[in-house]
Amino acid sequence: MPSPASPSDLPGAPAPVDLRSDTITRPTAAMYECMRTAPIGDDGLDGDPTVLELEATAAAQLGKDAGLFVPSCTMANLLAVLAQTQRNEQVVMESSAHMYRTERGAATFTGLFYAGVPGQAGAMDLSELESALQTPRAPLKTSLVAMETAHNNAGGVPLALEHMQAVHKMAAGRGMAVHLDGARFFNASVALGAAPRELARCTDTVSLCLSKGLSAPVGAVLVGPRTVMDKARSLRRMLGGTQRQAGIMAAAGLYAIQHMIDRLVEDHVRASALSESLNRLQSPLSATVPQTNIVQVDTSRSGLTSAQWVQALEGAGLRTRPWGATRLRCVTHRHIGDADIERAVQSFRDVLKQVTATLP
Amino acid sequence: MPSPASPSDLPGAPAPVDLRSDTITRPTAAMYECMRTAPIGDDGLDGDPTVLELEATAAAQLGKDAGLFVPSCTMANLLAVLAQTQRNEQVVMESSAHMYRTERGAATFTGLFYAGVPGQAGAMDLSELESALQTPRAPLKTSLVAMETAHNNAGGVPLALEHMQAVHKMAAGRGMAVHLDGARFFNASVALGAAPRELARCTDTVSLCLSKGLSAPVGAVLVGPRTVMDKARSLRRMLGGTQRQAGIMAAAGLYAIQHMIDRLVEDHVRASALSESLNRLQSPLSATVPQTNIVQVDTSRSGLTSAQWVQALEGAGLRTRPWGATRLRCVTHRHIGDADIERAVQSFRDVLKQVTATLP
Amino acid sequence: MPSPASPSDLPGAPAPVDLRSDTITRPTAAMYECMRTAPIGDDGLDGDPTVLELEATAAAQLGKDAGLFVPSCTMANLLAVLAQTQRNEQVVMESSAHMYRTERGAATFTGLFYAGVPGQAGAMDLSELESALQTPRAPLKTSLVAMETAHNNAGGVPLALEHMQAVHKMAAGRGMAVHLDGARFFNASVALGAAPRELARCTDTVSLCLSKGLSAPVGAVLVGPRTVMDKARSLRRMLGGTQRQAGIMAAAGLYAIQHMIDRLVEDHVRASALSESLNRLQSPLSATVPQTNIVQVDTSRSGLTSAQWVQALEGAGLRTRPWGATRLRCVTHRHIGDADIERAVQSFRDVLKQVTATLP
Amino acid sequence: MPSPASPSDLPGAPAPVDLRSDTITRPTAAMYECMRTAPIGDDGLDGDPTVLELEATAAAQLGKDAGLFVPSCTMANLLAVLAQTQRNEQVVMESSAHMYRTERGAATFTGLFYAGVPGQAGAMDLSELESALQTPRAPLKTSLVAMETAHNNAGGVPLALEHMQAVHKMAAGRGMAVHLDGARFFNASVALGAAPRELARCTDTVSLCLSKGLSAPVGAVLVGPRTVMDKARSLRRMLGGTQRQAGIMAAAGLYAIQHMIDRLVEDHVRASALSESLNRLQSPLSATVPQTNIVQVDTSRSGLTSAQWVQALEGAGLRTRPWGATRLRCVTHRHIGDADIERAVQSFRDVLKQVTATLP
Repeated sequence: MPSPASPSDLPGAPAPVDLRSDTITRPTAAMYECMRTAPIGDDGLDGDPTVLELEATAAAQLGKDAGLFVPSCTMANLLAVLAQTQRNEQVVMESSAHMYRTERGAATFTGLFYAGVPGQAGAMDLSELESALQTPRAPLKTSLVAMETAHNNAGGVPLALEHMQAVHKMAAGRGMAVHLDGARFFNASVALGAAPRELARCTDTVSLCLSKGLSAPVGAVLVGPRTVMDKARSLRRMLGGTQRQAGIMAAAGLYAIQHMIDRLVEDHVRASALSESLNRLQSPLSATVPQTNIVQVDTSRSGLTSAQWVQALEGAGLRTRPWGATRLRCVTHRHIGDADIERAVQSFRDVLKQVTATLP
Repeated sequence: MPSPASPSDLPGAPAPVDLRSDTITRPTAAMYECMRTAPIGDDGLDGDPTVLELEATAAAQLGKDAGLFVPSCTMANLLAVLAQTQRNEQVVMESSAHMYRTERGAATFTGLFYAGVPGQAGAMDLSELESALQTPRAPLKTSLVAMETAHNNAGGVPLALEHMQAVHKMAAGRGMAVHLDGARFFNASVALGAAPRELARCTDTVSLCLSKGLSAPVGAVLVGPRTVMDKARSLRRMLGGTQRQAGIMAAAGLYAIQHMIDRLVEDHVRASALSESLNRLQSPLSATVPQTNIVQVDTSRSGLTSAQWVQALEGAGLRTRPWGATRLRCVTHRHIGDADIERAVQSFRDVLKQVTATLP
Repeated sequence: MPSPASPSDLPGAPAPVDLRSDTITRPTAAMYECMRTAPIGDDGLDGDPTVLELEATAAAQLGKDAGLFVPSCTMANLLAVLAQTQRNEQVVMESSAHMYRTERGAATFTGLFYAGVPGQAGAMDLSELESALQTPRAPLKTSLVAMETAHNNAGGVPLALEHMQAVHKMAAGRGMAVHLDGARFFNASVALGAAPRELARCTDTVSLCLSKGLSAPVGAVLVGPRTVMDKARSLRRMLGGTQRQAGIMAAAGLYAIQHMIDRLVEDHVRASALSESLNRLQSPLSATVPQTNIVQVDTSRSGLTSAQWVQALEGAGLRTRPWGATRLRCVTHRHIGDADIERAVQSFRDVLKQVTATLP
Repeated sequence: MPSPASPSDLPGAPAPVDLRSDTITRPTAAMYECMRTAPIGDDGLDGDPTVLELEATAAAQLGKDAGLFVPSCTMANLLAVLAQTQRNEQVVMESSAHMYRTERGAATFTGLFYAGVPGQAGAMDLSELESALQTPRAPLKTSLVAMETAHNNAGGVPLALEHMQAVHKMAAGRGMAVHLDGARFFNASVALGAAPRELARCTDTVSLCLSKGLSAPVGAVLVGPRTVMDKARSLRRMLGGTQRQAGIMAAAGLYAIQHMIDRLVEDHVRASALSESLNRLQSPLSATVPQTNIVQVDTSRSGLTSAQWVQALEGAGLRTRPWGATRLRCVTHRHIGDADIERAVQSFRDVLKQVTATLP
């Protein structure tokens, strides 16, 4: 039986190298097989065995009481917020965090104020955080502090364990809960060489995205204390996140957290290779040195905006995304091999040549 | 290749007959095959081809501009409400509607007042509706009126086309939008012998559940006018309802709306058979005469509560659900054959015998 | 010094008799004097002495820990709800209550579902209430049950003490709080001959309107347990209900709860007189027999709608309000003397004559 | 008749000089007289003549269609936001604005995301603002941009007219509304020598606080376009901000905007005098040079925190407020005369002496 839809194996014309996001990864053949054979039930009625297994496995992996399978990491983050706060309170997080910047729509459903704290490399400035948590300064009670690792907008940086511990201590000492947006949690764990449980110890709840580097088609898991997860389960139903024969999707997610974590290191290695190659080009471009699978390329000295670069690179066979006015984001993932990295660098070279040619 | 997980085909011990809900239906072998081979993309980035096909197909079927694939019918209903209202307004619906009774958690995210209107057989009393829509009586502006067909709590009754037309006229004449909770839309369409488009003409948006009688594992589609659907798409992302390689699930849903509608009549026939048999038992029980796939059994003259009946029937090999203090709900679906109906009736007989035996 | 603005003392042309509402009552000369001389401070900074005295006095009167002065009874009710619930829960009340019908706009700010329970004479049907509070039936946790006395839409009926006790017992036994909308609390207390504390014992929080029969110009007081009131105080600031030199207004309110309660009986006597006179008219009109200061007049057998009656009566020198399609509401208050009642009855007689004249 | 409650005229012991806030100002004798004699009505029924006059006068003063009297400037700001946005959108303002920092509790009732933009002297950085308004960067639609003048946290700085025009142009060009938090609007107008209408031309709605330097006891007015004000009026009722005989309070506010604006210049002159005197002390303290009535004193080089300074100054007969960890805020107002400024400076001198004495 031919493996279905595993695109990197497909023969074909020179498709563009797609570094836009690790969200585009497709399930492996093994995942498809898991989906086909998973025992299923009704997760909205009396439970789905594969969903339950995924939830228990993820919780055990991170040393938490319980897990909850949800349609997306955005919903996992939203449920973590809802389940650990009351209306008319405040949630504090780094002001370039994905939950603050991109998921701010979710905030509008919570009856909470989202307070951003300035940070460096995705890590909140601790004295700014302390000041944000002080009641006299903050007219609203803060009930939750959120972190993100690996931090998307900071270029995939994993938060240092010491930072996470300091934030946790500061919050817990004030009776506040801590949530970790783990859209790329396992990338951080692999990059730091720290066990998932070690990172998870610094937080009450963690969201785990299954459909980025881990390559499951959809879904995320939220893990945390039993009482919080019970509330989150009830809130999931209210939001319309409860599904019926969800075990089919959970099967791919279960395979992902059991078999796909170690391979993330390959994405990290290739991101490093991309960064090094780009920085060796002796061009006006400057690439960040990645710790995980994200490389940001600063285009500010090139005379072109990021939008212009994205368009030019697309013409040269490489898909990237603008990340602000003068930065590009490149993300490595399972469908990017060594040859793709070389092709990507060549695309940059090609565009640079055109740019130089048009300069006076 | 053996068909996976199609339980009604499985050999095995006398599993209980499960009439609790049509939500327990599992995908067919053909659906599994569709899921395995569907072209997929990233529905959160630049689209998933199978999701797009499902959305377009559903919209065309109902004569609407556009569709949106969502994780559940609850989310479809919530998005329909959010996309067609502003904060601090009011939504009006029949007071035993699923959206009012069971999905009221969703209401708490909307900043709206949900006003219930008394009805008969799921149909709002039109003079009560008119009074509810009158501004002097209602201090809040009503922006949306919702109906449900087939109506779950009314025993699966399909709303009469004339009623839907009257409600639509009353709302549209006041500039209000109309939403139809179509968790069992196709059951209504089949039962009435009315084309989907004919029903959909009485409403702006319709939610279609794919995972009840149609047997897809998960998901629903919301269809409606382009501008509303654009708003709903943006709101779906905020709620965390946007998924990546969602085409895998959409593939089963697409098969469902293309191939599984006509078979609903079988569920309706078997529900009728169940009702007739129960009413012939000459017992204190009284079963509703179904038009679709739901039979409600009134236990009030039996001396047992619905909870006691559910427990006793479970012991006799039949699973049902309590529906209020003195009613049971039985739902027929694809995994219920003629023999299962006979076994179900026998379970009732067995329990009635015990009940009679214990009566003085 | 001439007494300011006490309109019922004013000489003048035959101004219409105004039975539209007791909210139109103006402060007495004594209240004006209190406002002029009250010690004041900054209630938003370190407190206003007269506000504090009003809050303490009201709390003591009802046997509660603490009080909070607010701009209106609507805000008092809203704060009671916000301070005793969390987001995504449910509040239960009689479905014709003012909080449910007229203050439903407030509900849209709470993130709660307002569940109406059918009632008789303003009193919830207790078995319907019990069913509404049962978790299996109600997918949302109920955290608050609200009552209203005297009940506006039920025609000013004071709830029987036994009913209030039964509701309180049912709620408290489930760990739910009870709020009493006391827009006309003292009317109920006077009518029942029950001490304020006796009524207040059946509830956790009570809102007291100062500007209806009690004749203060503006404001209300919320009283209740210390922790609830602390939350309410903080929420008042969020809503913009905290005012600076609020003692000026509180001074009138303080006078009101110290000196204006006993006089409510006069309004009740005059309402009875109005009702009796109307019912003696041998007309198609039928007036409710009031226990407090509200008389509802049923116009359904008169051939005119309530709106037509209001207009005709206005022409005949009497101001009333339509209360539904076929009822009028007449409210007695401090500016209505015995002669006004006689004039009011005469206005009804005049209109009835016209009506009869035009009948075939 | 003795003038009531005008405390600065009162004989008595050396009460502390109170520079904590201009919110502590009491009504003048003339205001008391207005309150005593104002024609009043029922603002929640068919209107209060004095309220209507205040609303019309304020609107005319600023060249707007209509006005709305509300209990506080916080509520005026909240209503401006609610009336000019829809749920699930975003409001943009300078990140140290009062609406962002102190009124963030109001935000939790709106279903909006409050996005802070960094600024200088209360004025948003225009390129940061532009970036915040760009849809690709902001996943939420921005419907309202808010400014504040004079800007409290920036030390009472009035925004330059050119800045306000630039912000207005940027917003209006994108179809977004502009709101101006005018808690100290007339201080800004006086300081800039710009007519109220001139400032108001840069914004759709303006809130005007009546109870700060203008000395009315309570209340604020929101002015703006007719359609917006109609919505705000309806929302005011929902929030519980509608009051009955509100004309009594409005009378003082009407007097305030007719007679108390010009005198604000006295507060500004005295604030300048205070600042100059403090900066001449040759101490580690550094005072801002005020344009209106607020002086911020930097204590960072003094070795004492602001909280310690506040306590020490209180002991020396001067009341101030901490404004962050190392700043004090001093506000001049109608109860502060020249002698009070001298006494205030002496209090600083006294504490500095103690501080110096304890230094090594």
